[in-house]
Amino acid sequence: MTGSAIPNIADARQGVLYLVPTPLDFACPSPVALSAVLPERTMAIAARLSFWICENAKSARAFLNRVSNEHPLAKPLREQSMAELPRAVHKKGDHLPGQFDARPLLGPALNGQDVGLISEAGMPAVADPGSSVVAAAHALGLRVIPLVGPVSPLLALAASGLNGQNFAFQGYLPQEANALEGRIRTLEQHSHRSGQTQLFIETPFRNQLLWGAMVRTLQPSTRLAYARSLTLDDADCRCSTVANWRKNGGGPVNGTPAVFAFGP
Amino acid sequence: MTGSAIPNIADARQGVLYLVPTPLDFACPSPVALSAVLPERTMAIAARLSFWICENAKSARAFLNRVSNEHPLAKPLREQSMAELPRAVHKKGDHLPGQFDARPLLGPALNGQDVGLISEAGMPAVADPGSSVVAAAHALGLRVIPLVGPVSPLLALAASGLNGQNFAFQGYLPQEANALEGRIRTLEQHSHRSGQTQLFIETPFRNQLLWGAMVRTLQPSTRLAYARSLTLDDADCRCSTVANWRKNGGGPVNGTPAVFAFGP
Repeated sequence: MTGSAIPNIADARQGVLYLVPTPLDFACPSPVALSAVLPERTMAIAARLSFWICENAKSARAFLNRVSNEHPLAKPLREQSMAELPRAVHKKGDHLPGQFDARPLLGPALNGQDVGLISEAGMPAVADPGSSVVAAAHALGLRVIPLVGPVSPLLALAASGLNGQNFAFQGYLPQEANALEGRIRTLEQHSHRSGQTQLFIETPFRNQLLWGAMVRTLQPSTRLAYARSLTLDDADCRCSTVANWRKNGGGPVNGTPAVFAFGP
Repeated sequence: MTGSAIPNIADARQGVLYLVPTPLDFACPSPVALSAVLPERTMAIAARLSFWICENAKSARAFLNRVSNEHPLAKPLREQSMAELPRAVHKKGDHLPGQFDARPLLGPALNGQDVGLISEAGMPAVADPGSSVVAAAHALGLRVIPLVGPVSPLLALAASGLNGQNFAFQGYLPQEANALEGRIRTLEQHSHRSGQTQLFIETPFRNQLLWGAMVRTLQPSTRLAYARSLTLDDADCRCSTVANWRKNGGGPVNGTPAVFAFGP
């Protein structure tokens, strides 16, 4: 996919691939106002696109329906083209080369149509599927423009007060108890050696399990943070030493999306 | 700083620390419209704050002046309180524990005033000073709320098509040629072993120097990306294999802020 020559100037007759971020309130009972989390320009561009590549067509339409309250859509929802990433991408991801060739999905862009890439929540291709589509766009010489919106790992990093000059996002940690503890210890050692903040996520119903493992496993002096319900009214971002968490309790409740971080 | 007990519920009589992102057009000849990069809510909150902790008071005032075109400021600019982070923080950073105790700057928040933390461009405390202020807020039991806005390393990551499920931001690489090549090689080995995307930045006038070192040093199959002028009209995000970059040339011009990334 990356073997072709690089067109040095994007062909003006080709469409642009826009990366369209969405709110972080997916599956949350009280949605945020779009204007709380998306710049005017992000909404205006979303409203004028009618070709989409998405994680899930139903959620993409629900998002566009919300956008339509702020900006009239260029085309009615039922006439918009929605190409869903295949099931295999949802399950196994598409973030490594050769996993999925997304070039066929970008046909409309080769024909001059701008295309939007969109995921369930936040920035497509960051902690979410979509990078295969961006890679395919580069291979085809399309222009790629990321739009501004919420990116949960980065909001969580800023709100943690941990090192923001050197950080790594690790995705999900292993679920099995021994493997999880081992991984936490390895990441902590690396973090103390390098100063690098470690960020990761967990499915909402496993928040407390992961939290408990970290509070038990990490060194007392390590700073441990969580950020839950980011951008929502009940947003809750905390950071303290593991020693303090052990003494005072606390931590994220189950059932709300959260990002976790630790560092020296 | 982190030795005190964690107040479990933020005191309602205390102010909130808002992390206020700013546009990425710092020192660029043609500024973007704020509505292109900041959600309405970010601007509305910035407009009602009058206590600030900033990297540079002059740029913070210039930003608020732009905000005032969209939202009347609650207090005239000249009456706003601006606490600058000290010179030492600019030079040495404030991202590791014990480097700088920012608690004295948060006096207004302890007295019930909401405070904004702001940097020159993008998200404070991410690839920018400010994490000491966030850490101090947690130590004092203040509520910390990050607002949505542009974060250049994450926009660049999404636009690269590289692995967005596992990535590390490394800040600046060494300047000295041998040290730089060694570091590039070490990061590449780690990246090929783990699949982790490596992200970093450079001062704009050194873009081409860094780019040249990467094109020379990295393996031909490694994918190498740059994103420059993010969020601006001439935004330019490219990714291809090192083999292709060698064959076809290209790369970021000097003088514009850029983010770099590579991965398998």
